[in-house]
Amino acid sequence: MSNISALQKARYSYQPKLPTALRGDITKITCSMGAPTESIADQAEVKALFENTYGAPIARFTEGSNDFASKTINAGVILSGGQAPGGHNVIAGIYDALKKANSSNKLFGFLRGPDGIINGDLVEIDDKFMNEYRNTGGFDMIGSGRTKLETEEHFEKSRKVCEANGINSVIIIGGDDSNTNGAVLAEYFKKTNAGITVVGAPKTIDGDLKNEYIETSFGFDTATKTYSELIGNIEKDANSAKKYWHFIKLMGRSASHIGLECALQTQPNICIISEEVEKKQMTLAQVVEDVTQVIVKRAARGDNFGVALIPEGLIEFIPEVGKLIAEINDLLAHDADEFAALEDGEAQKTWLAGKLSAEAAPVFTSLPAGIQAQLLMDRDPHGNVQVSLIETEKMIIEMVGKRLKELKAEGKYNGKFSTQAHFFGYEGRCAFPSNFDADYCYSLGYSAFILLAQGLTGYISNVAELHKPADQWVAGGVPLTMMMNMEQRHGHMKPVIKKALVELDGAPFKLFASQRDKWAVETAYTFPGAIQYYGPTEVCDQPTKTLLAEKA
Amino acid sequence: MSNISALQKARYSYQPKLPTALRGDITKITCSMGAPTESIADQAEVKALFENTYGAPIARFTEGSNDFASKTINAGVILSGGQAPGGHNVIAGIYDALKKANSSNKLFGFLRGPDGIINGDLVEIDDKFMNEYRNTGGFDMIGSGRTKLETEEHFEKSRKVCEANGINSVIIIGGDDSNTNGAVLAEYFKKTNAGITVVGAPKTIDGDLKNEYIETSFGFDTATKTYSELIGNIEKDANSAKKYWHFIKLMGRSASHIGLECALQTQPNICIISEEVEKKQMTLAQVVEDVTQVIVKRAARGDNFGVALIPEGLIEFIPEVGKLIAEINDLLAHDADEFAALEDGEAQKTWLAGKLSAEAAPVFTSLPAGIQAQLLMDRDPHGNVQVSLIETEKMIIEMVGKRLKELKAEGKYNGKFSTQAHFFGYEGRCAFPSNFDADYCYSLGYSAFILLAQGLTGYISNVAELHKPADQWVAGGVPLTMMMNMEQRHGHMKPVIKKALVELDGAPFKLFASQRDKWAVETAYTFPGAIQYYGPTEVCDQPTKTLLAEKA
Repeated sequence: MSNISALQKARYSYQPKLPTALRGDITKITCSMGAPTESIADQAEVKALFENTYGAPIARFTEGSNDFASKTINAGVILSGGQAPGGHNVIAGIYDALKKANSSNKLFGFLRGPDGIINGDLVEIDDKFMNEYRNTGGFDMIGSGRTKLETEEHFEKSRKVCEANGINSVIIIGGDDSNTNGAVLAEYFKKTNAGITVVGAPKTIDGDLKNEYIETSFGFDTATKTYSELIGNIEKDANSAKKYWHFIKLMGRSASHIGLECALQTQPNICIISEEVEKKQMTLAQVVEDVTQVIVKRAARGDNFGVALIPEGLIEFIPEVGKLIAEINDLLAHDADEFAALEDGEAQKTWLAGKLSAEAAPVFTSLPAGIQAQLLMDRDPHGNVQVSLIETEKMIIEMVGKRLKELKAEGKYNGKFSTQAHFFGYEGRCAFPSNFDADYCYSLGYSAFILLAQGLTGYISNVAELHKPADQWVAGGVPLTMMMNMEQRHGHMKPVIKKALVELDGAPFKLFASQRDKWAVETAYTFPGAIQYYGPTEVCDQPTKTLLAEKA
Repeated sequence: MSNISALQKARYSYQPKLPTALRGDITKITCSMGAPTESIADQAEVKALFENTYGAPIARFTEGSNDFASKTINAGVILSGGQAPGGHNVIAGIYDALKKANSSNKLFGFLRGPDGIINGDLVEIDDKFMNEYRNTGGFDMIGSGRTKLETEEHFEKSRKVCEANGINSVIIIGGDDSNTNGAVLAEYFKKTNAGITVVGAPKTIDGDLKNEYIETSFGFDTATKTYSELIGNIEKDANSAKKYWHFIKLMGRSASHIGLECALQTQPNICIISEEVEKKQMTLAQVVEDVTQVIVKRAARGDNFGVALIPEGLIEFIPEVGKLIAEINDLLAHDADEFAALEDGEAQKTWLAGKLSAEAAPVFTSLPAGIQAQLLMDRDPHGNVQVSLIETEKMIIEMVGKRLKELKAEGKYNGKFSTQAHFFGYEGRCAFPSNFDADYCYSLGYSAFILLAQGLTGYISNVAELHKPADQWVAGGVPLTMMMNMEQRHGHMKPVIKKALVELDGAPFKLFASQRDKWAVETAYTFPGAIQYYGPTEVCDQPTKTLLAEKA
């Protein structure tokens, strides 16, 4: 039996759409360079750390001429961090541009993420290999990894591996951390005259690598459409059976962009936005009360069913819970032996209750027993609470259920509360890229090649005006230092690309906030259905609602 | 904001494909009737219970003439039981045929399932109402319910409701139980000269309403394609990250058709088939050992990742666990007060250990503590263990993990075992029907109308030759008594439609069995991707692999 599905076979022949400036003869493209740039904050500190690459101008591609045909460019590409749909198309874009420019150019894939460039694990990509992965999801073509490329030892090893293989350009496909490291690597190579350029591409389904220039990270479109398909199906089920409240946790710890986009697509009864919870300094009890009140209102209409979206990172954004977790981490770090000697879970809870601050103790007590146990038991090798293992959706269900019982006893609620819990994450990270992500990623890869062929380094490949049809997209590169500021990391100030959280005065959140009270009580579910790759353009080629709202 | 998605809007204008015999002028269709039929078993008993409807011939539609235009047919339709994609298209098929035959005919929808016909809750369906639900998923158009229409009181109430509304035909869209009850209702109406005909349509995502005549129940195609999309995405993720074993439980308690179909579509490392476990009289330890051995073999190749599919009903098919559950149910029914007086979970376990038989006691002991607790705590109003709440996927993970530790200690395993658990069910029951289900359901509805317009009763609408393009499908009706045998239900022998389990000598299972050892060790994942409604026919219009194997 073949293991190539009918859709995969059909997708092989999909030709991703490029911006007009990138179509036609690749030797007729040039870079139009803007004025020198500054970092978004802490300019002096960032400049001092990036002496050789700071302040480079924004590049935009225009018609002109270049010397690509006369150069030999051997590039190596790295997939860094979690999977996002479209990674293979970035590679395809690089590959096609590189071979078009000069058929003797070579593209290598570093295997299993940054480890590949450090350890010299790489493979040359040829037509046959490339064609097996065009327009497919996943990072299985060359693998990915989470090693952080950040020490001088890593950089030196990488330099030697590149030299040994004749590689003069490196493309790092990754999130904010990986691109930060890419900028540091670019600076290092420039400072040491290694003759190797470094260009990044913005990847993450979480959508938190985004700013004035980067309109969206790739993968966000496909992942949120996949989750929205499932949420819509569950809404349809809830509205047909009329007997369950479905609580759906969505992947993405550091920001709530995924939840917000899915809410705009599916119009659920509840969607918690972590950034709002933090901004309003809400307590856990307040979060629970808000959810409870929606359930009470719907029950009063006879609707004992609903759908609630919960971002994976919620509890870290609730200030009092964040403090509680920090206190537990501190206490257990200081008194690890004492804690380890305790007989059982009950003894641990008693011990902890005696040590927690007056603010933290009642928060701990308010948590369901299972969550209390999880905070004490599931700890990482450094002894820290493993927030990602906490089943927030079940915690909310339990606390809301308790609150509803109280209200029932008071005669303020007379409904039924039957629940189903879901977690969507792995389902969307490796879907076949939507047409949008297929086109966007291919354009990002194509642009990345032109940047490095022009000798630019420390840039991130950039494709903008994404709310328009692909032919009207604007392509080029933005210097990575421009997106940086200084932030505390592990006790030290470091230059980093600023993470984009959901902005409460941004258009997507405001759109959601203007509708949510209506969605809460009424049943205004929207059913996006499965991602379509063929068919009417309004079905197949739309960007996210987040992007459309931001560009409106 | 509109709550109609772009896909929903586009699907409104999809015109489902009909078999050639149903195209064209509806007054030019007639029924060709076969020879009298017999029930599949227990002919004398079934005949005695269906004196007025037993033995009717199979009907096939052919060119001819009929008197539909001169008759007034007012029909009422019921959606019964769990949601399945395509239910709305059955209604659309009935509606369009009924209005074509005579524009003064009326179609009513009974609301919220069988309760609607019992209590006289119904709504007339008009163009506008119908058009909002064409080619959409869910049962939200008129709602569904799980009331069993089976007592004489129900039948009498139903008769009065039909009479009061001038309804002379009832269509029941449901699974094996609902169609069994439909046959009993048809017999009752015939016996009492009520002048009301009853026709069924075969619905269930589980795929267990299937026999020589019914090639598949509707909804199975869409649901399994939706689950396969998600399983394929997770396989892609597993093969990219190479760090997790994903255990995926799939909805469907009474049979493993869903797991088998998904396995044929996605080629996972493991797929447990409950019917095989039962046939081979496997113990729980053996099931765990089989899974463990695949993990050990893959670890030996350096592959510490994989995907395993687990049918929801597994534990009831493991003979010793089935017996254990029966014993617990018996013990707790007899000694409910004694049990209730026990202090805590530990006391309950000790009490139970002293009461269980010598066979059942070690099975209980072998279960993870969480599952033991669940067997004692989560009980339905009748005191029975709630099998559907047992997290089988987590039970298997825990038991396999324990076994792997033993093997590691013996030096027979040296891998890592990190896991993720998933349950897919609600995600697929209400998806937009695939083109196959959209066409099949519309044809089933269209056929149902012709059957009842011909005055036939006690039939199930039937569309066959489904492995061919829709124009070559063969439509007609099969008498429900033909599919019946006598089975014990709640202590009494009753006539029922035989449930179709996975047959170990059937072509789909044999195909799976011929490949699974290869899939277990190698990584032969297939990624079906999202259901496509537009695009190449090999992507959009294929029936399930189960159906293709059975008809090959």
